[in-house]
Amino acid sequence: MIEQPNVATQAGLNEWRRLVTAIDRDRLPDLLAENVVYRNPASFDSYVGKPMLVAILGAVFSVLKDVEYLRQFESETGFVLEFSANVGGEKVFGVDILEFNQEGKITDLMVMMRPANVVMKLSEEVGQILATS
Amino acid sequence: MIEQPNVATQAGLNEWRRLVTAIDRDRLPDLLAENVVYRNPASFDSYVGKPMLVAILGAVFSVLKDVEYLRQFESETGFVLEFSANVGGEKVFGVDILEFNQEGKITDLMVMMRPANVVMKLSEEVGQILATS
Repeated sequence: MIEQPNVATQAGLNEWRRLVTAIDRDRLPDLLAENVVYRNPASFDSYVGKPMLVAILGAVFSVLKDVEYLRQFESETGFVLEFSANVGGEKVFGVDILEFNQEGKITDLMVMMRPANVVMKLSEEVGQILATS
Repeated sequence: MIEQPNVATQAGLNEWRRLVTAIDRDRLPDLLAENVVYRNPASFDSYVGKPMLVAILGAVFSVLKDVEYLRQFESETGFVLEFSANVGGEKVFGVDILEFNQEGKITDLMVMMRPANVVMKLSEEVGQILATS
């Protein structure tokens, strides 16, 4: 049996769900640890640091629409949230794999999605937004 | 706090980890419910039924090498297993999202992987194996 996450972690998880669903970019920085690590569905590299992740997720929020959270899975320190969403009119399914520190800030976020061809399209559109912002 | 899975489910999970890591195709059918549903990382469609899944996973096992399981997450009825693996010399990360019935047989398997370009390559190779088998 796994232990219940602490109150700060549970609050952080609830805030993540709220923020993504509402596309609340303004509150995103408050939820991230300074050295948060992000691994996206399209590339192998990791991206490190709050400013980087704020920029990337800001662009993702412009392309990934109608996020709805489905199943939830837990470990001692983290969560997996399954979601459905739309990218340019095509439906995708994905997971957010989240780790939190004791203050309820996100320290690690890995996102995977299917199907892969829509992930490639999402990645291109996010890249274009970042290149022109 | 989530409940501990029943003994059959836990045994099923352990058998899945063993079987994938050892590439034990012979024992795979025993672990699947008759109407198991499979959703892969590359396409949107679902595949239903034990014979279909045995064929597909048999091909996947030929292409996805050196699977190592990493983090594990739980819900009341299922699990998420994070893994790393190699596809044609390129490293991938993925998740198996597994649901079990009360007999410890897999009823639902969804797989997602990153990065997406390697998923496309994996999908092509699996398709070729299935087309020629």
